[in-house]
Amino acid sequence: MEKIIYPSVTERWDVFEIRIPGKTDGNPFTDCRISGEFSGPSETVRTDGFYDGNGEYVVRFMPDEEGDYRFTIHGDFSDSIPLPVRGSFHVTPAKDGNHGPVDVCDTHHFRYRDGTPYYSLGTTCYAWVHQPEELQEETLRTLRTAPFNKIRFCIFPKHYDYNYAEPLTYPFEGSPCDTADLNRSTMQRFTEEKKGNHWDFTHLSPGHFRRFDRRIRQLMEMGIQADLILFHPYDRWGFDGMGAENDDRYVRYVVARYAACRNVWWSLANEYDYIRSKTREDWERIGALISDTDPFGRLCSVHNGPAFFDFTRPWVTHCSCQGTNRYNSVERTDELLETYRKPVVWDEVLYEGNLDLGWGNITGEELVRRFWEATMRGGYIGHGETLLQDVSDVDHAILWWSHGGSLHGESAPRIAFLRRILEETPGGKGLHMLPGYWDTIAAAPSGDEDGSYRIYYFSYLRPLFRDFYLDDTTDYEVEILDTWRMEIRPQGIFRGHFRIILDGEPYQAVRIRRCVSQPTSVQ
Amino acid sequence: MEKIIYPSVTERWDVFEIRIPGKTDGNPFTDCRISGEFSGPSETVRTDGFYDGNGEYVVRFMPDEEGDYRFTIHGDFSDSIPLPVRGSFHVTPAKDGNHGPVDVCDTHHFRYRDGTPYYSLGTTCYAWVHQPEELQEETLRTLRTAPFNKIRFCIFPKHYDYNYAEPLTYPFEGSPCDTADLNRSTMQRFTEEKKGNHWDFTHLSPGHFRRFDRRIRQLMEMGIQADLILFHPYDRWGFDGMGAENDDRYVRYVVARYAACRNVWWSLANEYDYIRSKTREDWERIGALISDTDPFGRLCSVHNGPAFFDFTRPWVTHCSCQGTNRYNSVERTDELLETYRKPVVWDEVLYEGNLDLGWGNITGEELVRRFWEATMRGGYIGHGETLLQDVSDVDHAILWWSHGGSLHGESAPRIAFLRRILEETPGGKGLHMLPGYWDTIAAAPSGDEDGSYRIYYFSYLRPLFRDFYLDDTTDYEVEILDTWRMEIRPQGIFRGHFRIILDGEPYQAVRIRRCVSQPTSVQ
Repeated sequence: MEKIIYPSVTERWDVFEIRIPGKTDGNPFTDCRISGEFSGPSETVRTDGFYDGNGEYVVRFMPDEEGDYRFTIHGDFSDSIPLPVRGSFHVTPAKDGNHGPVDVCDTHHFRYRDGTPYYSLGTTCYAWVHQPEELQEETLRTLRTAPFNKIRFCIFPKHYDYNYAEPLTYPFEGSPCDTADLNRSTMQRFTEEKKGNHWDFTHLSPGHFRRFDRRIRQLMEMGIQADLILFHPYDRWGFDGMGAENDDRYVRYVVARYAACRNVWWSLANEYDYIRSKTREDWERIGALISDTDPFGRLCSVHNGPAFFDFTRPWVTHCSCQGTNRYNSVERTDELLETYRKPVVWDEVLYEGNLDLGWGNITGEELVRRFWEATMRGGYIGHGETLLQDVSDVDHAILWWSHGGSLHGESAPRIAFLRRILEETPGGKGLHMLPGYWDTIAAAPSGDEDGSYRIYYFSYLRPLFRDFYLDDTTDYEVEILDTWRMEIRPQGIFRGHFRIILDGEPYQAVRIRRCVSQPTSVQ
Repeated sequence: MEKIIYPSVTERWDVFEIRIPGKTDGNPFTDCRISGEFSGPSETVRTDGFYDGNGEYVVRFMPDEEGDYRFTIHGDFSDSIPLPVRGSFHVTPAKDGNHGPVDVCDTHHFRYRDGTPYYSLGTTCYAWVHQPEELQEETLRTLRTAPFNKIRFCIFPKHYDYNYAEPLTYPFEGSPCDTADLNRSTMQRFTEEKKGNHWDFTHLSPGHFRRFDRRIRQLMEMGIQADLILFHPYDRWGFDGMGAENDDRYVRYVVARYAACRNVWWSLANEYDYIRSKTREDWERIGALISDTDPFGRLCSVHNGPAFFDFTRPWVTHCSCQGTNRYNSVERTDELLETYRKPVVWDEVLYEGNLDLGWGNITGEELVRRFWEATMRGGYIGHGETLLQDVSDVDHAILWWSHGGSLHGESAPRIAFLRRILEETPGGKGLHMLPGYWDTIAAAPSGDEDGSYRIYYFSYLRPLFRDFYLDDTTDYEVEILDTWRMEIRPQGIFRGHFRIILDGEPYQAVRIRRCVSQPTSVQ
């Protein structure tokens, strides 16, 4: 290939890519630099490119405006193509379903850049891109009808209980350790010793990352955010302890490759505090590096094990939380919002499942309760499923939480019901917990406190009735929301003091909305 | 009556009572003193007496030894009977079912004085002694077959939601306020204003206290501890704000009257921190007064509302706790044991019920889970039930939590199952939580850590299987304890590494006991 390839027309917020042939001698990952400068009607953006193998160098860019753009590609990656390379392209309006990237909105919430509401309802399939192709396709089919609009997954392969298989590809050139005697009881030794691996961390494997290009693009087309996990501790290959120089080269590569995708979020790590080889200073350096090299300012956070990350860091856009107490996690959402003044996303709150391990065996009821509890308190939350189908063959289990595949649990349809309720909530910015209630969680649309729309959620409590009073003169439409049975049961129109009879089951809510047509006062 | 009445023979740990005629002019409650000194084989005890009305003065005493006792009654309560009065009586061994009082044992647990284990499994019927006689009798019938061995109730009548009725009797002479317009919506005003009451706090009403004599005695005969609540904030009569002098006279009277009953525990207050008229200094004064005037050293604590009492006070024998966080209460049991080095008794953890109020509408499942959680962590816990039977007539509801009556819930039989498991646990001192488990609660018999008996409880988690390993050479008998279905399912004998298949439902436990007959090692 000796041709420079790029489209002359692209869609707003889509990935514009320019591909240029260049050097293949030496090590393109360490020896060559490529970057681009893009100017549209009112923005000018500088971004790094990356080597995609086969002598091809790539710069990706997301235009934030409609209209004409010009670009200049700089670097030292080619002896045959005269540098800089200059060109132009035209940006058309976004098509249906393309709402742009997700931004933080009003301190505690999110919103698509075109103003469309975004209520983060995530799921987790850590290693789905490392599974056989047919399983990945099954995962995508499942996601197509599932209620989730964010998915967390790892760029590095995963070594953990129920995850012993080799990945399809590796991120670096080299060869993995021998796994002949790897099983449940020897697993820990592999994690600790990491013997027999031979990797050249200076040579990334573009084929590995190309597979992620495709999956991120497919998620983008489905309206699902790709929460990319850059590092994690579930490792037998040594990818969790490559040293600062190799880490930084990898991070720069990932940012150059994926930052232009409007649906990408950065998760520096899963359970950062279990990665013993990295210090707080390492995370700070990596966070600052992403902040410096990602010109699109993608959402960025760090997911914890035993202790929350320091979410006050300026490059952390939102709190990515795992509960630190299994009895009291999402119930702290409103407290964390107050503390950090950033959106709170519970990315791990124990999974619906039946595993032998305590992070993966709560009921669907309890997971759905946690979804409501977090949402009513003004936060967001993610799902995971670890349901063994056959206890006699646990070593070959396909578990959604890591492998993807199909959903077997009871929570997903209830999460769809919650999503429906959020979508029916005015204001487009989720909910805000109302103060002053001691035995129910009351919420109003965030930023809209005029009392015209309220939800009262009773969580695991099960009142047989509740008395309400808002004011003496307004007519309100009252419905019971059965969050488990997924039913909306109209109760009628009420004014002044009124009593709603519930059924004495847990997980009920009451929605009260001001009637559009109000009674005329008699003079 | 001009006769001095007392028995010549009594049973060890029973109430010995001497009744002497005395003055009726003036105010016997403020003008007269009576006290007794009792000497047995090796104990000498001084105790105050009390005026029981009708010109009768009473001293009560609990002999802690068998053998011959002598006594001397002092005072200024009689002009006609020469004082002091001297006499003697004989103490026989305790009969079946009389195990003596309950003491703190090994820092965190309880035990009857004769060495019989006491695992506190309480219930709550705050105002049962203030209900119509036939309802009180129904309560006693219920208690006869219920699993509870402690009951909390109030000496003062109760004014609260679902509790508007006048009590049978009042603790003082006088007359109550008019309650013509008392209902759910005016209730709060009565609590605040307390207008129209006319009481002479210097004249106690012996008839009121005599009714408690009888009920405490009946509970004693059923082996149920009477956890007497001296003060509480649910009041329209002014009994919660009588001032220090009246409070102290009332406390002295109650202690003189009931301290000799071996099943009495003192609870200075229910929700002490909601009684606005009393300061921390008042509680300290009252606690010290009980400590000074109760020669039998009955168990004593203070139950909280928003914040735990200072359980480090020397007169506090155990932590009487209400959860201060509705999502994380009994789960802190082991932490509180560590902090206070006293037994932890969760006297209120939300009630099994369906009320409109959030302290009284959890499921039976959740209450039973809390029982197990507290017990496995080395603590004790109490029950309450607030199950409305008819939502169309809530104003006349009979609710066990306050009125007594009958039980309608699902938790009581499961609490009986837990009691059975505790009674089967060796050592007689309950359980002690084992450290080092992150996703199960493991416990061994308190003080007995040789590994011969262990329980693993999974709480709301629902593993489909668990792997165990204790050692390579011992045979263990393994059972699944289904704490909800109340089933013990034997799994067989296991050695070394073994896997137990569970059913993937919440509220399961596994009990592992060393087999009595162990394999002989082959030489």
